[in-house]
Parts: sequence; C-alpha cells; structure tokens
Amino acid sequence: VQTSGASAAAIEKGNYRHFMQKEIFEQPTVVAQTLRSYLRPGEQRVALPQIDFDISAIDRITIVACGTSYYAGMVAKYWFEQFARVPVDIDYASEFRYREPVLPDGGLALFISQSGETADTLAALRHCRKQGQVIAAVVNVPTSSMAREADLLLPTHAGPEIGVASTKAFTCQLAVLAALAAHFAVKKGLLNHREEAIIVDHLLEAPACLNAALDHDEEIADMAHLIAPARDVLYLGRGADFPLALEGALKLKEISYIHAEGYASGEMKHGPIALIDDKVPVIVLAPSGPLFEKTVSNMQEVQARGGKVVLISDKAGIEQAGEGCMAVIEMPKVHPLIAPLVYAVPVQLLAYHVAVAKGTDVDQPRNLAKSVTVE
Amino acid sequence: VQTSGASAAAIEKGNYRHFMQKEIFEQPTVVAQTLRSYLRPGEQRVALPQIDFDISAIDRITIVACGTSYYAGMVAKYWFEQFARVPVDIDYASEFRYREPVLPDGGLALFISQSGETADTLAALRHCRKQGQVIAAVVNVPTSSMAREADLLLPTHAGPEIGVASTKAFTCQLAVLAALAAHFAVKKGLLNHREEAIIVDHLLEAPACLNAALDHDEEIADMAHLIAPARDVLYLGRGADFPLALEGALKLKEISYIHAEGYASGEMKHGPIALIDDKVPVIVLAPSGPLFEKTVSNMQEVQARGGKVVLISDKAGIEQAGEGCMAVIEMPKVHPLIAPLVYAVPVQLLAYHVAVAKGTDVDQPRNLAKSVTVE
Repeated sequence: VQTSGASAAAIEKGNYRHFMQKEIFEQPTVVAQTLRSYLRPGEQRVALPQIDFDISAIDRITIVACGTSYYAGMVAKYWFEQFARVPVDIDYASEFRYREPVLPDGGLALFISQSGETADTLAALRHCRKQGQVIAAVVNVPTSSMAREADLLLPTHAGPEIGVASTKAFTCQLAVLAALAAHFAVKKGLLNHREEAIIVDHLLEAPACLNAALDHDEEIADMAHLIAPARDVLYLGRGADFPLALEGALKLKEISYIHAEGYASGEMKHGPIALIDDKVPVIVLAPSGPLFEKTVSNMQEVQARGGKVVLISDKAGIEQAGEGCMAVIEMPKVHPLIAPLVYAVPVQLLAYHVAVAKGTDVDQPRNLAKSVTVE
Repeated sequence: VQTSGASAAAIEKGNYRHFMQKEIFEQPTVVAQTLRSYLRPGEQRVALPQIDFDISAIDRITIVACGTSYYAGMVAKYWFEQFARVPVDIDYASEFRYREPVLPDGGLALFISQSGETADTLAALRHCRKQGQVIAAVVNVPTSSMAREADLLLPTHAGPEIGVASTKAFTCQLAVLAALAAHFAVKKGLLNHREEAIIVDHLLEAPACLNAALDHDEEIADMAHLIAPARDVLYLGRGADFPLALEGALKLKEISYIHAEGYASGEMKHGPIALIDDKVPVIVLAPSGPLFEKTVSNMQEVQARGGKVVLISDKAGIEQAGEGCMAVIEMPKVHPLIAPLVYAVPVQLLAYHVAVAKGTDVDQPRNLAKSVTVE
C-alpha cells in the first residue's frame, strides 16, 4: 500500500480511537483542500488542471472502478447526465475488462481508485489506452501507476487513508467529480457564468455542511444500539442517493459484518420487500426534493409490513415523513451537487458506531486488504 | 393481473405441488414454443416478427425493466455487446424515468416485462416514445399496454405465469433476447450464414439442455437442507453469470426470505468478503471457459476464510474445482448464448426446494404482488 506523502504526524491517531474515526472527521478539511485545486473562488469559476484536449468534444464517458470508488462513479453518472448532458457508461473493473466493451471513438475513459493501483482498474485503464480512449484518473496517490498513465490526472488531496474502509477518499472523489461535472457543463455551454458562480458557491459551502453533518456524531453513536443487533439491514435511496445506499451498505458489511444491502427504492417492491419484518432495519436516504414523495411511499410500504425505518433527510423531509420512524437523522438542506458528500457522513458514522458497539476491529476488518492489487 | 390467454386447463397445478414448481418444469416446452417464433430451423436462420425499420442502422440500445426482467436485460447487454458489438445502456425503470437520461438519436429502447403493465417500465416506455426512440417490448401478455404501444413487439410464449416469483417468463425472455442478439449480429454483418446456422443449432438445443438441468431436481431437493438454515447467502458470477447470480439471490429472497445477495465475483474482495464465515453459504455460478479460472480464484478466497461453497458448473469445471466444495451441481456443457437459460434452472430449483423446506408460501410469498402496477 502506498500512501500519499504520509508524514509521521499525519498517520497518528491523535485524540481519535480509530483511524477510520479520525478520517471521517478530517473530511471538511480534506474536501476543502481538494476543492482548492478545482475552484477559483475569486473568479467564481471551476478550473481543471493541465488539459490538452477539447473537453467540449467529448460526448460520452466511460467510468470504471471497484468498491467504494465505483459508487463515487455511480454518483458522477447522475451528475454528468443531469448537469452536462453527457451520457455515462459505468462498470465494475472486474467485469469491464472481460466483457469486450464497445468503446466510442474519441471517448473519455475515467478511472477512480484511492491507491491508483487497484489491479482490475489498472488493467481496464490499459485496455482503454490500447483502444484509443482519452484516459482520466481520479486517484489519491499522485505517484501511483494510474496517475502516471493518465492523460488527465485529477488528484484527490485526502492525505493518507489508513482505515481499510474508505471514507475521506470517497468524499474527496465526489468533490473532484462534482467539479468535473460542472466544468463539463460550462464547456458544453449549459451553464452561463452566473450559473457557474452559483455552483462554485455551493461547492465552497461543502466543508461547512460536512461539519454540520459531523455535529450529529453523538446522536448517531446513541442510536447505533438500534442497528448493532441486526443481522440484516436494507439501505434505500433514489437517484444519486441510490449509490449512497450501496455505499452505506458496503460500509456496514466491511466493518460491522452486518449483511446490509443497498437497493434503488423503486426496486424494493420487486423482491426484497419479502425480507421485511421487524428484525431487518431499513435505512432510507431521502433529501427533500422532487423524488422525496416517491421514496416516502416506498418507506411507507416498509412500515405497513412492520419494518423499522431510520430516515436520513433534511428538516423539511423529517417534518413531513419522520413520524413513525424508529429514528431520524437530520442533515442540512443542500444543493444536489453536494448532497452525496454530506449524506456520506451519517452513513459512515453509523457504520463506525455500530462496529464499535459490536467490538469489531474497525481499522483492520477481517478478510479485507486496504488496496486490492491482485485480481 | 392479466394473463396471456389462460385456459382453465393451463392454470391448474396438475401433479405439481405448487405453480412455481409446475412453471419451472414447463420451461423446456415454453422455451421451445417461444423460439419457434424466432427461428426458421429449415433455413437455419434467425427471424424476427414484423419490422419496418432498418435494424442495422441502430448503433445503441437502451434497456429498461424491473426485478427479474431487469436481470434478463443485463444478460442481454452482455450478448448484444459481445455478439453484435452494439453498446447497451441498462437501467432500472424506477431510476431511468427520473434521472433525465440522455438518449441517442434514432436509438432503440427495449422494455422487458412479463405482464406488460409494470408501472415504472410503462412510464419509461412512454418517456422514450416522446424522445423519439424506436420502442421494442418483450412481454408475455400480447394484449398488454406495452404490447400495444411498441413499434416492435417481441412476445414470449410462456403461457400464464401464476407463481409470484418469475421463472418460465424469465427463460422465455432470455430466449427472445438471445435470438434478437443473433439477429442484430447477422444484420450488422458479424455472423455469416454458416455462423448463423451454428447459433440456430445451439438455440434449438436449449430445450433439451433445460431438460438435462431439470434432471437434477431430486439432487437439489436433497441439498436444500444445506441452505435452508442460512439467514444469509452470497451468489457469485462473472460476465453473463453475474446477472444470474443477482436473479438467484432475488429468487431466494422472494420465496424463502433468506437474505441472499448477488455479486460480481471480482467485486467480492472489495467488501462483501468481510461477511464470509461458515454460516454464510456462497453459491458460485461458473461454467468452464475463459473466465473460469478467475472465478475459481475468488471461490478459493472464500474457502480460505472458512466459507462453504456450492459450485454450479459443468463436468470440466467440477472436475477442476469441485473438491472442497460443500456441494456441486453439474450442468451440461453449453454455448454461451444458452448458458444463462440452462443455469437459471438450478437457481430456481434451489430457491424452490429451500422455500419448501422452510415451509413458506411458495406461490404467494409475503409482501409481494405478481405484477407491480403501482409506482
């Protein structure tokens, strides 16, 4: 495992009990640090590093990654399509490299990896290079293979991540991808300067919103005993909250060994609702907004069958639908382009506190390696 | 719920204990019946019904569906890309309709639904119609809304499906999609007549191979007690076996209330491997072939951590990797274009016998409706 310029100070736990906890709390700082490379606050502009190709000519993006990085890519797919109207294909690296993908001429292939060494992702990158794709890489280790082999290096500045379960690398990936989506939208002529300025302002608010989310730490620690006895958990979300539901489930799997599964809210009634009883808590990610009513109706289907719900939403959402929930967690009201960063925090804290309650080895969960450099 | 021309005789259980069991055993017959509309055995050609547009001009396909039909679509994505080199975007209907998808000019949008009335899928179809896409529908009810609204109606001839958990509708969908993928490949000039003839021969063998798979019924019933006590199960597969792993997990969820989850084999080490212990059986779908070694190595990672494996493979695969497994199920060696149909059978039988062993209501599982006509 390579770390990104780890100094002795940076890899100590300080006042924290676990590296994962420390890394969760570092997020406002490292997201701000990462965004600094991608925003020019004075000019209220988004800006990318060294590009020597015409970004506006790219009309299709292929995203390839594994694990948590894959879920960051799934969020980015929603953003690229919604804000920049650029269609995105996304695939697991282990599937992509063997399925003989049909790649578009002059397409951009984007790879996401904390270590920049994930074996399947690196092999997929080299495959795309041979197929003439422009290669972009979002990595946390600037000396890694992927960083060296990319045409467009998009570094995250999360600092060394020691906890095996990725947290701050994920939100820094999202920060870079949000800036990239906004940059594409500008280059495609879909955002004028005033709109770009508004987006930049929202992105600059992200660190403060992450802090507001972290303020719920104690409350989440108190509710961890509601989830810790569960053997099974469902996580639900729609739109960009669907990949976050997958990430929330992955975090619970990784460090608390609870079998959590993420599902698109609207798919629940096509099968997994059969699992619902009072022993399977359902965690619902649903900021208020256009999709809120739909998700609430899925939530009510769960409750009508005796299922116990934890609702993570904002003030308006909780006022509207919080009654009857086993627990609620209130997030600040935020722009869709930073909501996934903010909602990542309660999802991480919940997994962390459940693992602590269960007494598992949070920083070195069983069976897992920090970076997967074998296939 | 509409059924496709159900006669009194067709909706009786006959000698079977459950409709689901009857429908599993009908598959060789209804798949043959379905293929008859799509193949001209005398000329050794694939043939589609009434088309009044130039199929060779279509260079991108969008597939939209829910639940089991979605997994049939995922299998088709592998086929379309591999055999016809036509890239495919696929999405859950409930996500697709709200994510403002960017659709290609003159693209083909393909909808899959047993009932032809699934609310989210129908709404997605109407959205694509407004966006000027050519509309194709694979449905089992020829009088349904989707059938009426499609430009290209691709019926399955599964007959009425009564069991809530879809079985024969799924394999008939796969049969249609396999024929469609082959037809695209021919129209794209990627299969010459000799190659087309070989594909037709393989498709014509499908019913016999389904019968061979059904011959393992008793053996699978005997091993159901190995899975029935589990609260959690993982299903693994690569390539076109990945969606089958998802479908196998969905079947177990639906009728046995076991929390089964399907995973791409190569993704397991990025998180879910933390769940592995001797209480979480892992079912591996792996026909021998180019991806076999990779999947076996994932399987060995499970075994090295005390996990118990059920391997579903062919003779060569079981000879190579069957040792040390908790159980094996041997399938006939088949062409990649029919393997998913054949491997669907043990997956269905396993879910069925586990549910019977647990005493759940197989044909009317709790919380589920046969067709989901609400959002």
